[in-house]
Amino acid sequence: VEKNEPMICVLAGGVGAARFLRGLVREVDPASVTAVVNTGDDTILHGLRISPDLDTVTYTLADAIDPVRQWGLRDESWNMLEALRRYEGRRPQGSSAASTWFGLGDRDLATHLYRTARLAEGALLSDITTEIAQAWGVGISIVPMTNDRVETMVDVLDDGDVRRITFQEYFVRHRHAVPIRGVDFVGATEAVPACLEVLASAETIVIAPSNPIVSIGPIRALDGVDRVLRDRRDHVVAVSPIIAGGTVKGPADRMMAELGLEASVTGVARLYAEICGTLIIDERDAHLRDDVERAGLRCIVTDTMMDDVGVAARLARTAIDATS
Amino acid sequence: VEKNEPMICVLAGGVGAARFLRGLVREVDPASVTAVVNTGDDTILHGLRISPDLDTVTYTLADAIDPVRQWGLRDESWNMLEALRRYEGRRPQGSSAASTWFGLGDRDLATHLYRTARLAEGALLSDITTEIAQAWGVGISIVPMTNDRVETMVDVLDDGDVRRITFQEYFVRHRHAVPIRGVDFVGATEAVPACLEVLASAETIVIAPSNPIVSIGPIRALDGVDRVLRDRRDHVVAVSPIIAGGTVKGPADRMMAELGLEASVTGVARLYAEICGTLIIDERDAHLRDDVERAGLRCIVTDTMMDDVGVAARLARTAIDATS
Repeated sequence: VEKNEPMICVLAGGVGAARFLRGLVREVDPASVTAVVNTGDDTILHGLRISPDLDTVTYTLADAIDPVRQWGLRDESWNMLEALRRYEGRRPQGSSAASTWFGLGDRDLATHLYRTARLAEGALLSDITTEIAQAWGVGISIVPMTNDRVETMVDVLDDGDVRRITFQEYFVRHRHAVPIRGVDFVGATEAVPACLEVLASAETIVIAPSNPIVSIGPIRALDGVDRVLRDRRDHVVAVSPIIAGGTVKGPADRMMAELGLEASVTGVARLYAEICGTLIIDERDAHLRDDVERAGLRCIVTDTMMDDVGVAARLARTAIDATS
Repeated sequence: VEKNEPMICVLAGGVGAARFLRGLVREVDPASVTAVVNTGDDTILHGLRISPDLDTVTYTLADAIDPVRQWGLRDESWNMLEALRRYEGRRPQGSSAASTWFGLGDRDLATHLYRTARLAEGALLSDITTEIAQAWGVGISIVPMTNDRVETMVDVLDDGDVRRITFQEYFVRHRHAVPIRGVDFVGATEAVPACLEVLASAETIVIAPSNPIVSIGPIRALDGVDRVLRDRRDHVVAVSPIIAGGTVKGPADRMMAELGLEASVTGVARLYAEICGTLIIDERDAHLRDDVERAGLRCIVTDTMMDDVGVAARLARTAIDATS
């Protein structure tokens, strides 16, 4: 690891971004890395402020993430959630208290309680996020995309009618198994982005292999973000979250198709063309290189399937080299 | 158990009241009993609304209370609290987030999360309390003294200075090992009592063997409560929480002494004389019967040490018989 390395900024969602970051910190000084993390997925449940993507990134870098579920903590217990069922069965009609569809492990709860208590004390989410990351010994800077509330809402098709639900309801409660008609990032226009300075000064800006619609989309929806990215387009490199027309995890492929976009590296290229100079695609998509270039991006073909941290590290190195 | 029994109202704090109620429901139809419970001890920790006395009464009647600690649930796990220590050591100066001095068991947390979520939905604490009691299969009516916030503050002597802290800080954090100079029930004057109707209509009103200062005191501080009790003085019977100059549990004896009151059944009699016709004292205090009567109360001497539920049941029967 060299000293005084150029700053690297990673636009991040959850699992895919976390795996990329775990590889990146093998290649560069963690102090040179800032992850700007989506908070559009954040929700309030049982009065607790829950930031799924921030926690996934933090827990992964702390090597504390559950390796099977890929969310929450390893060696977790679920006694609170089990006890909550007693009340879920008794709550009045129309109440959503004691809902057990969102997994809250006992140890993971401590993070939500700390975040909630600090917010109640008036602390900024960005400061709280730093405190949590430091408590877990994480060396990179983890920054929420904004300190303001932005709420990703999903319009889903439900028995012929379009119904608006929160992202977590879509993602967890309905296991993203309902067709969508649109997404909206409520509050994004008014929210003050917490990432413009790092975007303006980073040598490399990586768009992690995260869901382009609901992970990268909320960050881009913040006032000024796309403008800075356009200005710095040659420094921006994206890793396609779509491999061979599908996703490793999550509903990005289906969401893109349902929104009328092509669920392929070409579709990703078109989404990012304005703000991103280079797209890294997987070897399985090598035959689509021309399509990506026709969309206006440089195209790098490599192994992007981050089954182990070694692949992730090589992928991170490829991304850095692409912009220097 | 007879049907259509006369209504019994019990003014209740935590452990002592809960044990009395467990005996009472052996003697009468639980449907005839309403416990009006102190909520001056309620606190907000980590954003969660915690109602210690309500939970102690509910858990005890559900036979779910931890029999050794006498608070919280039996067979409890503490994984959240243990995980919270990671953050407690890292929080900024002046922050009280991630405080671990208040015991929050993993299963017990479900109750606080349910209460907090229902309050956020706009539900009344009284309705939530009923829902929780029913979820635990409790047959009596458990009623918080008010649906409004009343906060018991304790003025403690700290290194020569008087400092005002919350009741839970005094009771749990400092293990009530600091001398007090006063107590104040903040919000009591403005709060709307939720118990006036049941006090006006009950055949028997029992002041449970709870702390007269900080358990019964907040209920009495509500507008109109003492007035109703005075009007119905012959229907009111108290069980002394002081036995042989001390308490079975908690700091009632020390608090009384520190506030210049006599820590004895006589002191209790003087505190209750205006609102209560009969005081039940323990056999160990039989020699103080004259003093109690001189304070203006009828005095009944019996075994009040509720080591088992049989004693509690006999004590409850004595209390009922005293007013009929």
